[in-house]
Formats: sequence, C-alpha cells, structure tokens
Amino acid sequence: MSRIRLIIQYDGTDYVGWQTQPNGIAVQQKIEEELHRITGEDITLHASGRTDSGVHARAQVAHFDTDSRISEDKFAYALNAYLPEDIRIIYSGSAENFHARFDVKKKHYRYQIWNAAHMDPFMKNTALHVHSFLDVEKMNAAAKLILGEHDFKAFKSVGVELKSTVREIFSSSWKQEGALITYDVSGSGFMYNMVRILVGTMIEIGKGQREKESILEALEKGERDLLGATAPAKGLFLYRVEYPNFDTEDYMQSAIEERR
Amino acid sequence: MSRIRLIIQYDGTDYVGWQTQPNGIAVQQKIEEELHRITGEDITLHASGRTDSGVHARAQVAHFDTDSRISEDKFAYALNAYLPEDIRIIYSGSAENFHARFDVKKKHYRYQIWNAAHMDPFMKNTALHVHSFLDVEKMNAAAKLILGEHDFKAFKSVGVELKSTVREIFSSSWKQEGALITYDVSGSGFMYNMVRILVGTMIEIGKGQREKESILEALEKGERDLLGATAPAKGLFLYRVEYPNFDTEDYMQSAIEERR
Repeated sequence: MSRIRLIIQYDGTDYVGWQTQPNGIAVQQKIEEELHRITGEDITLHASGRTDSGVHARAQVAHFDTDSRISEDKFAYALNAYLPEDIRIIYSGSAENFHARFDVKKKHYRYQIWNAAHMDPFMKNTALHVHSFLDVEKMNAAAKLILGEHDFKAFKSVGVELKSTVREIFSSSWKQEGALITYDVSGSGFMYNMVRILVGTMIEIGKGQREKESILEALEKGERDLLGATAPAKGLFLYRVEYPNFDTEDYMQSAIEERR
Repeated sequence: MSRIRLIIQYDGTDYVGWQTQPNGIAVQQKIEEELHRITGEDITLHASGRTDSGVHARAQVAHFDTDSRISEDKFAYALNAYLPEDIRIIYSGSAENFHARFDVKKKHYRYQIWNAAHMDPFMKNTALHVHSFLDVEKMNAAAKLILGEHDFKAFKSVGVELKSTVREIFSSSWKQEGALITYDVSGSGFMYNMVRILVGTMIEIGKGQREKESILEALEKGERDLLGATAPAKGLFLYRVEYPNFDTEDYMQSAIEERR
C-alpha cells in the first residue's frame, strides 16, 4: 500500500463542488471514477478541504492509498488521459505519513472582480462583474482589519456548527490591474463561505455603502447580519495550500516547465 | 438613418464563427437578433471580416444602419442586457462614412499555446496545448521571414479562390511567459486560415520537425503542401482592428475605465 498526493486544478463551473453530493457531479467523484478505471480499486480521495459549487482550484491537494504498481509520477498522466478538460492533475507524487486535510498549515484563496462597464466574456466563469466604481484603497484598508488571530464567528453561514470559529489570517490584500481587481488572503483555515462573506462585505465598502468599521463590530459581536452579502462563487479560487513539508507553489513552476 | 459602430468581444467556442451559417449559431446572428429586439428593425451587421468556428475576438468591429432613436453609446448597454455572456459589446458609437470591412487598414491576430506537460483547465477553450518542448527562438526567427509584402498563395486553404493573395505583414513575433507562448501578427489583411497555417507551420519548426526555410520555399512556390498543418481554431483571437480614423486599441482602455 502506498500513499499518493495530487495537485489538482479545476474550473468549478460545471460541478457541485469538490465533495461528492447527491444533486450533481462533484470533482472528487470524477477523479475517483478515473482512479477506479486505472487501478481497479475503490479509492477514496482526501482533499485539503471542500470547495463549494462553482468555486475553482488553481491548486487543490488530495491524497489516496493504493496497491497499484503505477509509479507515483505517472498518475497525473494516466488520470488526465480520461478526466474532462476542466479538471487537470498537474502533479502526482508519493506522500508517506501525509494527510491532505489534517496536515494543512496554511491556505490561500484568491477572488477576482472585473470592474468595468462591460464584462470580459473570457472571464465570465472566473470573475465577478461589478460595473460601478470600487474604491480599492478603502477595500484594502478593510482587508487589513482581519489580520492576526480572531474569532470569525460572524463570518460563517448561519446554521453551520463548528467546534471553534477562531482562525489566524496571515495576509489579506486587494490589488488592481486595469479592470481586474484581485483579493488575496491566506490563513490557518477558512470556514464555509468565510472568504465569500469577507469579499461581499468589502465590495460594499468599496462601493461606499458601508464603512470598514462594520468588520470590527462583526468580529467583536460575532453576528452574521452585521456583514454584507455572500459574494458569488465563480470569482473564488483555492489558490495555494501549504503543509509542513509540502507547498503547492513549489510545484506550480515545475509543473509548467515539465514537458514530455 | 444613422450608422453605428460596435467593438465586440466573443468567446467563439460555442459558435459556428462570426458569419451566419445554416449549420449552427453564429455571433452575427445573435447580435442581429438582439438588434431586432431593441429597435424593431431588420438590421444587417457588417464586420471587419469573418472569424471561423471556434475563433475568438478580443476586438471585432462591425457597423449597422438604423433609424432607431437609441443614442449611439447606449447600444452597448442595451445589447449586453440580452446577449449571452460569451458575447459582449464593449463600445458603441456613431460612425458616419465608415465601413467596417472596406475601410480596414490593419488587422492584428494573436495565437496562444500552453506549453507544459499538463493543460491549464482555465485555458481549455482559449489556447492550444502542446506538451513537447517548443524552441521559441526558432519560431521567432521563422516569424520574421514573412515580414513585408509577399504573395501568400501557399498560406490559403486549398479550394479558396481569391483575386489577390498578396498581403503585407507589419509585425510577426513569438514571446514566452512561463508556459504561455503567444504569437502576435499584424498585416494589411489575412486570408481564410492564413494565421492558423502560419502557426501550425511554426509549431513544427519549434518542435524541430521542419526548418524555417520551408516558409521561404512556400512563399516562392505558392504550394500549400510545403507548409505544416492548420493549427486548431481555439487558440486564435482577432486582437485589434485599425482604420484610418479608428483604432480599437484606443477604446480598450476606456472601455475598461468606464463604469456606471
């Protein structure tokens, strides 16, 4: 039995999310089906975490155990031969004593906004269109308020029960390049919808519809209704996952440079 | 009666091309249908030229005549309200004494290749995946051979009859940024499939399967079979169109900066 680790990219548009669900096709399910096809085994994939319906991954990590004699680096090629084009395995390698979910040290998310009068048709599935002016400086000032360790109770969807809602945020910033406005955030972990609630709130701040202080009040009082709307899934990417001895970013460049 | 000019962006993946065809839905047809809806008139659009099935436009230009009293700059908003998300009108303005096809001075095309072991799922419809090594320096040296005025008879699809196959190329170059390899070419005009035959030939040069001199031989002899395969449509973009008094590039930035 050996343990294999994958770095997975997917355009989440046509999926119900990472995790297998009764109501549609999940990314996990597609990959597990192809693992069955190439190994003959019933394999369960364990990812760094779920992503919601419509959310994308630039670098999702998952592991699985197998008795197959396919060499570890060949799983990427074997799976890509059968997977749909909107799911790609860009790295496969051996990973003894590794757990994709329990060992996560740091996760990075990115959110993309196309801020122009008319939407870019090439970003229709990967960015949110906002046609009114956004004050990115104000949004960036708001983004800094969540840095450090906080109780993010207000930033979870109502009804979701968790042992702890304390998370540590390592970086949080907005940048603008032409019409493309990008939010990058990294932290010890993120609750369901947390990034999308953050983004939705900061968009309202950028539009001048709310003050950044409402974030401080929400952190203090822990009430969801002190924050803005949940931003749509399609602008969100799981961007990078870091473990004690494994960082997806180290493999992004080599995945690009590797040619057959 | 007034003449209106549009700059149009489209993801060509789901269309049979610009021009209305019996065998599927064309971009022209979608826009004409919506023009009919908002003006009540039967309007014919005249574009700078056709694009093939699967080819994209970052900046296509088209004009039409109308008696409608909708103000010229409002057509973009009115059309975008009804058009599918993969077609966007990013500019509309008045254009007396202008013909989108006959007045073209210069056209620019771009072709995108993703050169890595595994395809980027976010570029599945907008770049060609080449997994073997491409020598971009060799491809760029080949690209320079077509600069200036030449008879491009060899670079047209067999069976297409044209009055003249002489075209002038103003710029032609490849560049590489990580796994993304981009070809930019501008000229007085391009024949059906000309850019795709050029790109297909230069890919074979980049793979070391042919020498750049085969382009010189094809220019001299005018024989299609001296050149490489026609590259797939999905990597190709109509990138910019220039007229004596109108350049789409001048409007790309303002389209981005305009907010409602």
